Amino acid sequence: MKIAIYGYGNLGRGVECAVNAADDMQLFGVFTRRAPETVKTLSGANVYHVDDILNYKNDIDVVVICGGSATDLPTMTPDLANNFNVVDSFDTHAKIPEHFECVNNAATASKHTALISGGWDPGMFSINRLYASAVLPNGKDYTFWGKGVSQGHSDAIRRIDGVKDAKQYTVPIEEALNAVRSGSCPELTTRQKHLRECFVVAESGADTARIENEIKTMPNYFADYDTIVHFISQEELERDHAGIPHGGFVIRTGKTGVNNENNHVIEYSLKLDSNPEFTASVIVAYARAISKLYKRGDYGCKTVFDIAPCDLSPLSNEELRKTML
Amino acid sequence: MKIAIYGYGNLGRGVECAVNAADDMQLFGVFTRRAPETVKTLSGANVYHVDDILNYKNDIDVVVICGGSATDLPTMTPDLANNFNVVDSFDTHAKIPEHFECVNNAATASKHTALISGGWDPGMFSINRLYASAVLPNGKDYTFWGKGVSQGHSDAIRRIDGVKDAKQYTVPIEEALNAVRSGSCPELTTRQKHLRECFVVAESGADTARIENEIKTMPNYFADYDTIVHFISQEELERDHAGIPHGGFVIRTGKTGVNNENNHVIEYSLKLDSNPEFTASVIVAYARAISKLYKRGDYGCKTVFDIAPCDLSPLSNEELRKTML
Repeated sequence: MKIAIYGYGNLGRGVECAVNAADDMQLFGVFTRRAPETVKTLSGANVYHVDDILNYKNDIDVVVICGGSATDLPTMTPDLANNFNVVDSFDTHAKIPEHFECVNNAATASKHTALISGGWDPGMFSINRLYASAVLPNGKDYTFWGKGVSQGHSDAIRRIDGVKDAKQYTVPIEEALNAVRSGSCPELTTRQKHLRECFVVAESGADTARIENEIKTMPNYFADYDTIVHFISQEELERDHAGIPHGGFVIRTGKTGVNNENNHVIEYSLKLDSNPEFTASVIVAYARAISKLYKRGDYGCKTVFDIAPCDLSPLSNEELRKTML
Repeated sequence: MKIAIYGYGNLGRGVECAVNAADDMQLFGVFTRRAPETVKTLSGANVYHVDDILNYKNDIDVVVICGGSATDLPTMTPDLANNFNVVDSFDTHAKIPEHFECVNNAATASKHTALISGGWDPGMFSINRLYASAVLPNGKDYTFWGKGVSQGHSDAIRRIDGVKDAKQYTVPIEEALNAVRSGSCPELTTRQKHLRECFVVAESGADTARIENEIKTMPNYFADYDTIVHFISQEELERDHAGIPHGGFVIRTGKTGVNNENNHVIEYSLKLDSNPEFTASVIVAYARAISKLYKRGDYGCKTVFDIAPCDLSPLSNEELRKTML
């Protein structure tokens, strides 16, 4: 199975590692918008310019698209689906139906297979929401994120005047998690579910009280949360906050029995040292599935909901039944 | 969707509750080996004798078979698959390949769709082992069971001379769970993973020291575990240990990155007040899926590995993408 990486940032590098870790996959190469000779890959993979990708139409089984959801993927994924099997990690939840339609039209017309919105949320978390709600219809589910770095919130802090650098962690609130696990089906406000913890490097001489106030009152990003702001040095930021950890929890509680007398808790959680590398590992497993579906003539756009678990594995169905069921 | 229940014990009653809780399902009735007039159902469902089931061949979409794995299901499931779509919860892990073959032959020949080994282990736990291993190939997974009642171990204690009644709980050991979550991939012995806690009602005048010793040294069941034995009264057993709770954990840790420098933990856990009612809820969701597959002409025997998540839900794929992805 020959995999191409389209776009080479953190996610693309994660895909490179995940493909190299899979015995049944081979990395065809990396496609970049930059000048290929300026891009050095982690494992010495070949680097090509995106403009040349059609030359390799017959050499690539699946293109894993590692662009951003805001501006790249809405055009990249349908464009590439005209000629390739593709997988992306489109994560703007509200625009998934629209993106699905575009990619489905392209892939159906070209007789290719595509998967959108792979990763962990959307992705593994979505699957767990679906399984849990199908099994316990009389219940309620909750998703918590973190502890982990939010790139968007970190960027928002960096745009404040007097801020040199910053990192923001989304932190699930333990009391809320435990209230959910109790089966009491609490109604939780935004503030009760998560808090936001910020590590900020101020420019020398900057008014830190003003910066802290600007962070805490920023609409959409921070105003609805309890926010903790720490001012630290650039050295401390680089030493203690260099990673991109993330994770979270999907919890559903539900009742069964003649009088709903029995309570059940289904909990799925992730604790990830590297958000982009884990996301990459998920979408590479889905690249394997997409290649299998394509070979069976199952064309069009899919999501994680449409893929049977067995298609993610390199093992045969016989082996899976024998060793994992 | 009309569902029939074949066998009416704890699992059958759980299926009755689960079908009644599903808006898109209707309970056709219960089939029993007992005299139908002696069986009273929880919700007043019709009761039929198993010998008459072929009379209702055209009235039933899926038969949910609620027999035991040791002697019932190996013949019941293939027999019924000759005439019906069927779902079972066959849980003798080592004999799954053989059972699959028998049921697949019957269902393929009769053009019906079957699912074997639904439930939570095998079932939801198996799915989580598969997803986690596909996403993190460079890792190791662990399954822990409990805290929960083991029927087999409770029965084994009850067979000891001088024992009037007994209940046995399988308890996962917290230190082992935490060692696994740390990502250290420990090698754990049977004794290190679970302990066994027994609540025993002795016959009046029985030698409790002998009973305790017979329990703790019983091969296969207890000898390889640390076992705690409590002697209590029948009243205490009935008051404090009447339920059938269970649950457990599937944890996989794995590494990614150029030098495997990043660690990830995927954890799925269940905490169930009623083991049979939760198992029933899972197999009823799979009955829905089997009915969809049958309508698509996808015949033969399936397992939870072969079923895409979307087929478990009463929602359309459009609704699922919009609300759960």
